[in-house]
Amino acid sequence: MLPSTLRTDLALEAQEALTCTPQETEGVKISETTVASHLTQTIVQIQTENAAKTIGKPKGTYITLESPKFAEHDDSFHATASKVLADCLTSFCPLKGNYQHPDTVLVVGLGNRNVTPDCLGPFCVDHLSISRHLFAEYGQAAFPTPTPYLLSGIVPGVMGQTGMETTEIIQGIVSTLRPALCILVDSLAARSIKRLNRTIQISDTGIQPGGGVGNHRKAITRENLGIPVLSLGVPMVVDAATIVTDSLQLVQKGPSTPLPSLPPSLHTLFVTPKDVDDRVSRLAFTLSEGINKAFGPSW
Amino acid sequence: MLPSTLRTDLALEAQEALTCTPQETEGVKISETTVASHLTQTIVQIQTENAAKTIGKPKGTYITLESPKFAEHDDSFHATASKVLADCLTSFCPLKGNYQHPDTVLVVGLGNRNVTPDCLGPFCVDHLSISRHLFAEYGQAAFPTPTPYLLSGIVPGVMGQTGMETTEIIQGIVSTLRPALCILVDSLAARSIKRLNRTIQISDTGIQPGGGVGNHRKAITRENLGIPVLSLGVPMVVDAATIVTDSLQLVQKGPSTPLPSLPPSLHTLFVTPKDVDDRVSRLAFTLSEGINKAFGPSW
Amino acid sequence: MLPSTLRTDLALEAQEALTCTPQETEGVKISETTVASHLTQTIVQIQTENAAKTIGKPKGTYITLESPKFAEHDDSFHATASKVLADCLTSFCPLKGNYQHPDTVLVVGLGNRNVTPDCLGPFCVDHLSISRHLFAEYGQAAFPTPTPYLLSGIVPGVMGQTGMETTEIIQGIVSTLRPALCILVDSLAARSIKRLNRTIQISDTGIQPGGGVGNHRKAITRENLGIPVLSLGVPMVVDAATIVTDSLQLVQKGPSTPLPSLPPSLHTLFVTPKDVDDRVSRLAFTLSEGINKAFGPSW
Amino acid sequence: MLPSTLRTDLALEAQEALTCTPQETEGVKISETTVASHLTQTIVQIQTENAAKTIGKPKGTYITLESPKFAEHDDSFHATASKVLADCLTSFCPLKGNYQHPDTVLVVGLGNRNVTPDCLGPFCVDHLSISRHLFAEYGQAAFPTPTPYLLSGIVPGVMGQTGMETTEIIQGIVSTLRPALCILVDSLAARSIKRLNRTIQISDTGIQPGGGVGNHRKAITRENLGIPVLSLGVPMVVDAATIVTDSLQLVQKGPSTPLPSLPPSLHTLFVTPKDVDDRVSRLAFTLSEGINKAFGPSW
Repeated sequence: MLPSTLRTDLALEAQEALTCTPQETEGVKISETTVASHLTQTIVQIQTENAAKTIGKPKGTYITLESPKFAEHDDSFHATASKVLADCLTSFCPLKGNYQHPDTVLVVGLGNRNVTPDCLGPFCVDHLSISRHLFAEYGQAAFPTPTPYLLSGIVPGVMGQTGMETTEIIQGIVSTLRPALCILVDSLAARSIKRLNRTIQISDTGIQPGGGVGNHRKAITRENLGIPVLSLGVPMVVDAATIVTDSLQLVQKGPSTPLPSLPPSLHTLFVTPKDVDDRVSRLAFTLSEGINKAFGPSW
Repeated sequence: MLPSTLRTDLALEAQEALTCTPQETEGVKISETTVASHLTQTIVQIQTENAAKTIGKPKGTYITLESPKFAEHDDSFHATASKVLADCLTSFCPLKGNYQHPDTVLVVGLGNRNVTPDCLGPFCVDHLSISRHLFAEYGQAAFPTPTPYLLSGIVPGVMGQTGMETTEIIQGIVSTLRPALCILVDSLAARSIKRLNRTIQISDTGIQPGGGVGNHRKAITRENLGIPVLSLGVPMVVDAATIVTDSLQLVQKGPSTPLPSLPPSLHTLFVTPKDVDDRVSRLAFTLSEGINKAFGPSW
Repeated sequence: MLPSTLRTDLALEAQEALTCTPQETEGVKISETTVASHLTQTIVQIQTENAAKTIGKPKGTYITLESPKFAEHDDSFHATASKVLADCLTSFCPLKGNYQHPDTVLVVGLGNRNVTPDCLGPFCVDHLSISRHLFAEYGQAAFPTPTPYLLSGIVPGVMGQTGMETTEIIQGIVSTLRPALCILVDSLAARSIKRLNRTIQISDTGIQPGGGVGNHRKAITRENLGIPVLSLGVPMVVDAATIVTDSLQLVQKGPSTPLPSLPPSLHTLFVTPKDVDDRVSRLAFTLSEGINKAFGPSW
Repeated sequence: MLPSTLRTDLALEAQEALTCTPQETEGVKISETTVASHLTQTIVQIQTENAAKTIGKPKGTYITLESPKFAEHDDSFHATASKVLADCLTSFCPLKGNYQHPDTVLVVGLGNRNVTPDCLGPFCVDHLSISRHLFAEYGQAAFPTPTPYLLSGIVPGVMGQTGMETTEIIQGIVSTLRPALCILVDSLAARSIKRLNRTIQISDTGIQPGGGVGNHRKAITRENLGIPVLSLGVPMVVDAATIVTDSLQLVQKGPSTPLPSLPPSLHTLFVTPKDVDDRVSRLAFTLSEGINKAFGPSW
């Protein structure tokens, strides 16, 4: 099991951290394919409660798209990646689409717009082709070709700005809007700096307490929203405690030696790249294009 | 009655526009006092449905604080104004406060953060002393002295950004948060450029369809939220159609002559001062200080 | 001659406002061509000082690209427009390019980032493929194919933010950077609301005092910078005084009748569309793509 | 001497890192006083080139204001701190002030506005009482009482945004503006997380290559600007390599053991607190108030 200080929001990292080899973990299925040039897709399925407990991630499916090029300025790679992402979303999504009564998809941009590495969700919603209000006013005539989905979006802010749990806000909006699907977009914490800005994780498990950069306190899941939930994230930070623990382990050759206790202030700090502004803009745009291609109108 | 092109969100202007003198309008009560140096308070009470129809504003109370100094850079005036505003809010507010179970006050920052004159609501929420989450975690121990109110806030965005009616979003949040009071903060449209940035209107009537800069389509009121609603606004724009009509009337000496029809594109334009960035920041801060003094913790 | 209240930054509008037909104005040459679907190019050449005085714009060449589609969300039109713009810039530019010692092009984003319709220049610089520092460090190896130009950019802010005339700041930077060309990007004021967001003006005359939204006080020209200057702008506002005067003239059937004097406060107000945030983002991106195609590296 | 990975922009930390006690370092003078409740001032004077070499900081005076309260939300502490800072600036400043021909003070907000911990400089300039342009237009009549100094400010942006070295930009502006003093405001890197957001450093040595969050390449000093330079900074980040090295040293009990080599990617990462948005806003405001009190008009 993971030492508690070695936090990761990526299921892929969580299972890698197990001392046993992945094949040996009962209840976990892993498959890896190259889906495009420089782009690997890994599917981790956590199939039993036992496996969930071992890995420390809830039961469900986690798709990971990985490429060093996610962190680079390469427009054609990002265009390809957004198409692959759209395919993932479509295949993952339990909706069938309906041209008569299109399904509303609510995208929630989690995170704090005022903290650069936490902007992924807000920036992603900024670039969506929001369409629900147009259908409400003009019907399918609003679009060049009919659409089976209607996009809506919200950037709720973080608890220090709203005084509310994000879950409370989303539950409320879901109760009046009645969307068919909720997509959560959030900045994630990775365990390893190698994965920073190079991985997109898509899962059907929602967001757990303590996930993301801002550490939500309550889960945002299918259970507490009452509708299917997809979550979409990219690691933008590593916890400072994690990076230090990891380095200590390297020196001490393996995790068996007891680690010294870390100063508690380390847990309120995160590690992020110096050019995080460029990276978060680029990745937010790639995510929004993926969502637009899957659920937006054909503009 | 107002020519339909002469839009104003201020009850004070709406009643001034009547050809009869205010005293003659049945069902309307007006009182004016000087509440501080350079600061006039006018209370307009629209008491009957008939009066509401004549004036074109819903039944209710409208307090107007007016001063040329609202548009100026005068810290001591703004400090005074925020105290007067806090008193207005307290006296207007139907809550009594409760130290055991403090009442939650939800402040909604209406408008579009990306359009400068429409930033009043979002900027106001940015400066609030949000306290509800602190009480949830630490109780009254979170504050230097106990507080009878808990502040929470949301900036929902506008329909083009969310695909949702703002009312839908607020209704949803109210249904899960269950606040005791909702305060709506919005940029208003005035009829006269003389009132731009010089007036704060506080009312208990909520926001009507077509109000504000961004023209909400559905009302946000006590009726559709199920809790008391105060709305707070400052005129930041004049509709372009209004400014033109007003000028034509001046030339034609009185509103009796038929006005020429205006190009429809005029109705999608607004008029705003060149230094609107300074004005909106200053006024948003004054509003937030008023709300903080009335309902925030004593920091 | 233009009534002083009828301000426009567009040479095209200035010459249209003359009572004589364009053909009759000596020293002014006008040619119009359709350069792409939905895209008209008009070249106004003001060839004599007399003509400059009559029209109220300095001697020089003004290219105007016009299309109703500039105000619309149509990615393929904007892609075409940015190519046409790149061609205009290249043909207009006095530089020949040099792969051994590439010419530095300094792009100046004029205007106030905090006032939405005045953001065109700052947003345009935000999207440039800045390359000068990469060449300084890695030479041509920094780019996939060698580049004859190096892009640099600055957003100087407005006088209320800096305490300096923008000309002073640019003169200073030009004196140390020694660029071969300066491109000024600015939000313009149109006379007619029909031209708002539908016109790109490119000229070799620099920016005159009182131009743009923020009204620079000193000219920014080849004369006071000592290097060739291109200016690039899109009308984002109409002066409030202009819109009122124009309406009055319509009513009074022609400009011969004396106009009533306008309240002076009108001159500190401007008129802008309600969805100015979307328009300014889109147009800034189109301008930056045009500049990138003309002078940026081949990424 | 400091291991090269243990970077700090604070002279106080640099001298603390020496194995000898401060008193023993020749050419270094240190004095500490409590200047207000919870507020300690340490003056480090590096008096010889030898001492500069030993400590790794240029010859000059470094004033450090330290308090745990800098990181807290305590308006009255921040008001006191800004007064103490104003006194430091005034006593440090070589200008005498002149009511007839007031001295221009140019404040440069270094750093990248798009990366939260690097916003200190830009945010500080945003809050200055810029006055130079008012004097240029109205003379001393612009102010309630005459002022001996005129404030001007610039936010130049970082090299990735401008393609220019920041020094080039400032040198240019200084050459046309001819200010009497230049104040540089920048986010700093500390060695220890204990000093994050709790220390203001004021020095007369300018900014050295590799300082700040964004790592300027060329020095910005009195030598290359030709006028006196004060620099003002607050540690907002710790280099990731530093935090790891520091932790390893703790485990290995002292710096004598050879440290393992760190992955090079660590050097492109920084560590910052999760609530960096609140901290940077608060501290930028405190700095701007200090500068306003020392050099701004009496508003």
